[in-house]
Amino acid sequence: MVGASRTNMKEVASRAGVAMSSVSRVLSDHPDVSPTMRARVLAAVEELGYHPNMLARSLRAGQTMSIGFVVGDISNPLLAEITLGAETALREAGYSLLLTNSENQPGRDAEHIQLLQRRRVDGLLLSLASETDADTRAALAGLEQPFVLIDRELPEQPEMWAGAALSDHAAGMAAAVHHLLELGHRRIGLILGQPMRFSRERRRGLEHAFAEQRLPPSYIVLEGHLNPEHGRQATAHLLDDAEPATAIVAGGNQLLIGVLRELERRELAPGRDVSLVTCDEIPLSELFRPPIAVIQRDNRDLGRRAAELLLGAISGAEPRSDVLKTTFVPRASCAPPAVRI
Amino acid sequence: MVGASRTNMKEVASRAGVAMSSVSRVLSDHPDVSPTMRARVLAAVEELGYHPNMLARSLRAGQTMSIGFVVGDISNPLLAEITLGAETALREAGYSLLLTNSENQPGRDAEHIQLLQRRRVDGLLLSLASETDADTRAALAGLEQPFVLIDRELPEQPEMWAGAALSDHAAGMAAAVHHLLELGHRRIGLILGQPMRFSRERRRGLEHAFAEQRLPPSYIVLEGHLNPEHGRQATAHLLDDAEPATAIVAGGNQLLIGVLRELERRELAPGRDVSLVTCDEIPLSELFRPPIAVIQRDNRDLGRRAAELLLGAISGAEPRSDVLKTTFVPRASCAPPAVRI
Repeated sequence: MVGASRTNMKEVASRAGVAMSSVSRVLSDHPDVSPTMRARVLAAVEELGYHPNMLARSLRAGQTMSIGFVVGDISNPLLAEITLGAETALREAGYSLLLTNSENQPGRDAEHIQLLQRRRVDGLLLSLASETDADTRAALAGLEQPFVLIDRELPEQPEMWAGAALSDHAAGMAAAVHHLLELGHRRIGLILGQPMRFSRERRRGLEHAFAEQRLPPSYIVLEGHLNPEHGRQATAHLLDDAEPATAIVAGGNQLLIGVLRELERRELAPGRDVSLVTCDEIPLSELFRPPIAVIQRDNRDLGRRAAELLLGAISGAEPRSDVLKTTFVPRASCAPPAVRI
Repeated sequence: MVGASRTNMKEVASRAGVAMSSVSRVLSDHPDVSPTMRARVLAAVEELGYHPNMLARSLRAGQTMSIGFVVGDISNPLLAEITLGAETALREAGYSLLLTNSENQPGRDAEHIQLLQRRRVDGLLLSLASETDADTRAALAGLEQPFVLIDRELPEQPEMWAGAALSDHAAGMAAAVHHLLELGHRRIGLILGQPMRFSRERRRGLEHAFAEQRLPPSYIVLEGHLNPEHGRQATAHLLDDAEPATAIVAGGNQLLIGVLRELERRELAPGRDVSLVTCDEIPLSELFRPPIAVIQRDNRDLGRRAAELLLGAISGAEPRSDVLKTTFVPRASCAPPAVRI
């Protein structure tokens, strides 16, 4: 590919009767180009039938037309959907996706960022395992390529930070909690993952809903890891509490699996013995009996937006973050609190 | 990276007092190297503290240390698990994974194979959308890099075919059908996806189990696409048949979703009104009430094996295929046929 575009550039230079460096300057929108030079080069591009943008892009020094993607766990349907959205948008723009999987270990993120930098990717999409890990932050500070975060916020903004594609978790959570409060629940348990943006925003939505209804904060929030075991243990904790939770919100599909296992073990049915809401739709939430209420978002769109922000940054756009909506879908897993006999 | 390894090669050549081309020949195991030359170069490599294999690998002409992965739908948990296994094995060997997603459209496979070839990947892993598509076969015939198939079989073996990582679908299916036959089912419906290896092998397992028990072939096999809609329609067909199926086997997790939707619509419960088996474990199969019997396989291992076969081929190993086991796990969704009133 590089060979082909150098040939193209040579042909353009020869047709225009100018140096190759002049062609390069025109095509990369260098400010130091006279109008005459610009016209000559673009005329040659047109005569030769090249698409100037495509040509310019592949001519820009150091471009590999590849984007690195650092993802926590591709086998999580949530991240697989995000990857699908990003890969489609990048491929349409002529970029290939280099995928690395950190298995949710923050230490691997820094390694992978450096690996992708050595492979000279043109930019990075990051679904980091930690927002505060020192090695990760050092690796980000050392980047020479723009990067876009997916549903993550950093304590600082390194030089090459190009924005973030974020989900409005607080709005969907507030809607879910309003629904539970209206059904009569007061003791609501929220099970969260690691202390990252998605956890903070979900907690904020919960607190906001209680405050809006001028209710005392009679909720319990349990933070941990986004895995089934934390979901199971937190559910046990919520049900064994002196004042047991009558409604549980699982802050992620991996947590939901643990919640359902613990309810099953205790022979408790969602919607009958305890109300249940989950975050992020999976076939399980719709097909489970009763169907499980869910805070939905369009994960494919999240990946696509992140890719678009990065492509914008590569073309010189200013850093920008997009916040995408979440929607609460009530289902039969939410019902008035069970009467205790 | 290329820059760094050229520097390394230069240092080795200078230390050994030989030409860079001689270093390259020694490290790439070129037959045309004298024992003295070999010893001198390897001594220099050792003195400089380089790892000869790593160095040799990055020095070999044209190596980009990247592997292309053509996948049908990364958002399918099955393929996401396979990708995870492959990515981990490749990364450990120093390779990066270039991911393309064909959205299960055979036409895209050919495009992506050519794209990855232009990007000069060192090899390809292919989970093709079709085993017979003419464009795909032409693209494979034109490859200059080795490729390994994941759970696919081609009608012919193109020159660069380096083997396949396959699942033994027939064995798991035969075990499941034996179980259903022992429970008393005779009218068994098997819902399959596209006519590819996984469908042929699953059908073979079914036929084999009936033949082993010397039973007439009173099964129905419905082929279609691996999506919920085919699962739903096939279920309706099986239940509306003059002799309705008493047991249904869904040949994939996307088909299962459609089967469950249709059963729900008819208010039929798995394990009570109709027996149900699915292929490939997802949280849904274990947590559904009743839990759904499943033909399991280790998809992460499948991805890892495919990556290892490809790495072997890149190092010059002969083409080889590995067949990995599948296991039937009976669960409460399988019960004796319901008595019709």
